[in-house]
Amino acid sequence: MLNEKELELLQKEVYEANLYLHNSKLAIHTWGNVSAISKDRKYMVIKPSGVSYELIKSTDMVIVDLETGKSQGLNPSSDAPTHLLMYKANDEIRAIVHTHSTHAVAWSQAEQAIPCFGTTHADNFLGAVPITRVLSGAEIVENYEFYTGKAIVEAFQDQGSMPKNGAILARRHGPFTWSSKSPKDAVDLAITLEEVARMAMFTKMINPSISSLSKDLESKHYYRKHGANAYYGQAKKIK
Amino acid sequence: MLNEKELELLQKEVYEANLYLHNSKLAIHTWGNVSAISKDRKYMVIKPSGVSYELIKSTDMVIVDLETGKSQGLNPSSDAPTHLLMYKANDEIRAIVHTHSTHAVAWSQAEQAIPCFGTTHADNFLGAVPITRVLSGAEIVENYEFYTGKAIVEAFQDQGSMPKNGAILARRHGPFTWSSKSPKDAVDLAITLEEVARMAMFTKMINPSISSLSKDLESKHYYRKHGANAYYGQAKKIK
Amino acid sequence: MLNEKELELLQKEVYEANLYLHNSKLAIHTWGNVSAISKDRKYMVIKPSGVSYELIKSTDMVIVDLETGKSQGLNPSSDAPTHLLMYKANDEIRAIVHTHSTHAVAWSQAEQAIPCFGTTHADNFLGAVPITRVLSGAEIVENYEFYTGKAIVEAFQDQGSMPKNGAILARRHGPFTWSSKSPKDAVDLAITLEEVARMAMFTKMINPSISSLSKDLESKHYYRKHGANAYYGQAKKIK
Amino acid sequence: MLNEKELELLQKEVYEANLYLHNSKLAIHTWGNVSAISKDRKYMVIKPSGVSYELIKSTDMVIVDLETGKSQGLNPSSDAPTHLLMYKANDEIRAIVHTHSTHAVAWSQAEQAIPCFGTTHADNFLGAVPITRVLSGAEIVENYEFYTGKAIVEAFQDQGSMPKNGAILARRHGPFTWSSKSPKDAVDLAITLEEVARMAMFTKMINPSISSLSKDLESKHYYRKHGANAYYGQAKKIK
Repeated sequence: MLNEKELELLQKEVYEANLYLHNSKLAIHTWGNVSAISKDRKYMVIKPSGVSYELIKSTDMVIVDLETGKSQGLNPSSDAPTHLLMYKANDEIRAIVHTHSTHAVAWSQAEQAIPCFGTTHADNFLGAVPITRVLSGAEIVENYEFYTGKAIVEAFQDQGSMPKNGAILARRHGPFTWSSKSPKDAVDLAITLEEVARMAMFTKMINPSISSLSKDLESKHYYRKHGANAYYGQAKKIK
Repeated sequence: MLNEKELELLQKEVYEANLYLHNSKLAIHTWGNVSAISKDRKYMVIKPSGVSYELIKSTDMVIVDLETGKSQGLNPSSDAPTHLLMYKANDEIRAIVHTHSTHAVAWSQAEQAIPCFGTTHADNFLGAVPITRVLSGAEIVENYEFYTGKAIVEAFQDQGSMPKNGAILARRHGPFTWSSKSPKDAVDLAITLEEVARMAMFTKMINPSISSLSKDLESKHYYRKHGANAYYGQAKKIK
Repeated sequence: MLNEKELELLQKEVYEANLYLHNSKLAIHTWGNVSAISKDRKYMVIKPSGVSYELIKSTDMVIVDLETGKSQGLNPSSDAPTHLLMYKANDEIRAIVHTHSTHAVAWSQAEQAIPCFGTTHADNFLGAVPITRVLSGAEIVENYEFYTGKAIVEAFQDQGSMPKNGAILARRHGPFTWSSKSPKDAVDLAITLEEVARMAMFTKMINPSISSLSKDLESKHYYRKHGANAYYGQAKKIK
Repeated sequence: MLNEKELELLQKEVYEANLYLHNSKLAIHTWGNVSAISKDRKYMVIKPSGVSYELIKSTDMVIVDLETGKSQGLNPSSDAPTHLLMYKANDEIRAIVHTHSTHAVAWSQAEQAIPCFGTTHADNFLGAVPITRVLSGAEIVENYEFYTGKAIVEAFQDQGSMPKNGAILARRHGPFTWSSKSPKDAVDLAITLEEVARMAMFTKMINPSISSLSKDLESKHYYRKHGANAYYGQAKKIK
């Protein structure tokens, strides 16, 4: 088991990323949530359900046992079962963010994946941002949040497995983003996704018959920032 | 009759909720108004009509006699007769908010109820946010604000009575929200309504032929936050 | 002639209204301008052309002779000839505002008057906000700003004369508002106009075939705030 | 070669213009970049690639040799090859800005030039804001950023050469603006372009069949602010 100090630091990191999400206006009220996983991948730390940021502190972040799904203290975010399944699907995922950001939600409510219309999108996401399948009535009634997680994982079955960084729209619900780096990085991706969703909506409004970006340009931009031959950014981290 | 102290506290609560409405950008200038009702349901406290927030203080909030509709001091908001009828329609309503928030007004001007397109809506409102019936020319001329209240109450006749918490669009005018909890909670609902209205408009722009949410998902989400088996949020209030 | 003190006070009032316009985000950069007229209606005070707010002070506001159009000091706003014609058209107009606010400009570029779609509009403007006629090539080349003023005045010919308070869209250019009260009031009207223009655009997007408000509701709302039997607001001014 | 002091001042000017771009919300995260050229036109100073504003200082701005394209220190913005070609195309260009501002990107993703719909546009850009040609698959793979610069220069071939001040949309990518005056002025143009792009989108939404501005009005407005007979603004600079 992790020592206390490690979990406390993780709570702090998750707390700060939740504040960052809130201050970035990705959701009003207490909507949205950020989680992270411990190094031994035995514990998930996540925002408590439906509580105001003025009332909570770092140590109120809920620690959930990954195996049993059990937790102590405050109730975890109602989306916790969704997060749990995503962590189990790829061992490199370190943090997950769910928001109700306006334009990403609009695409998910419109039941459409977000097409890759330009380099802003291609620099950050490879291809369209996918949308989960329709859940059956039985799945919704039995355990909506669990089957949402299941549908997210299934959406990447064709490409082998879930990528370690990425974004998806839960159909009729809203966006999830995840990162192999940090909770803050996952929130940054959620900010990017909202901007890409907004640009895509405006693009369709200006030219309803516009097609997706060519594969040439799509790959060029994604791989100039990601993968072995990336040349965007700095080779070494700036302190 | 209520003692002076109680009414003063209610004035303060209403004053602060009006400021909250204003700071939340739900209306420009002095538009919009918040009211609350005393515990004995004999007095409504409401914002004065058309006055600037810099010029008024808590004790300027107007106390209106629920039975006679009479008041002293400043003129109450011109929408006061609408509020009065709503309080009389359900004894559990504690506070009412009217705003001119941009997207909710746009739906009301477009003469359309706001369809339930996703879980953000379903978490907060059960089914479409309704819109009031057309008022007759005679109703408009005789007493527009009174008949607006009457039309709001009538909109819920099919379901027995007005819910104790809810939202509606006054046709060609704008949104009203109300709460069984507090003036602040009613403003929170007005913020939610504006965000839901904005998301719904964008959803239609992305996919003009999108249908409403399935009844399964609609009920699931509304009742996970409301009713006897709600599991969203915390069982106990956090202090 | 006015004494120096009176003109200085007018410069201060115009300067502050220009700052208010700028801080209200009705125009980026140094776009937009506010003017006011002296009590003897011999002098107009207006913002200098194309200068940054950080670089000017109250006494830089340009004093223009109403009869000759001549001024001293800095160049007046290039729209000055438009303002001059408007002041001459109705002796009760005290201040004029021109902005490049986004949605009002969009309607003027779309060559459409802003239809009255709801009570927010009807509370403030009687009927559609009109748009000026097409200017001829000769008028544009000879004196664009003068003929813009002429076209504004002509737009109200059918109803006898220009109202003392109001709003209009200069075709393909942008909005003008004016007030019989003060420069600040004229800016308030410009803020209202922008919000009404934004609501109207969204209304059309939600329901492209929506018609204008019924005459009953239009009159009811305009006259509840304006005219002899107005009951909106306070009878006495609050200090 | 320039002396050290001169380059340091240029770095400071470029650094401050990058901050101005960021604070003007023309791009989220670290997106967008500003460059300037030394007086001898031997060195370009540009923002480093993908670094956070909190982590960099004025002296981190990268100095690139115009002839060889080589630099020292941090990696320059990945768009540096595009900037280099633009400087070489007109000796009067002093600064270049690239942003991902939402509405300008939407037009570029929609593969449409921004039509001149009104005087706000015509006051600042002569005619439509053009869009670059389609790049071939080979150009994209070989050197996307170089060929983007080439396509920008080619877009002005018909009119002899690139203007010394202007704006263009890189197809499916985003806007570039440039100025003969200063980095700050180029950012101001980028702010103007985004506002013009936003107004143009709204104009099309209100009236999808609207045509471009008449040539009379287009020329009138552009030349009242630019060229030998400009009468907008002040003849002398205000200190």
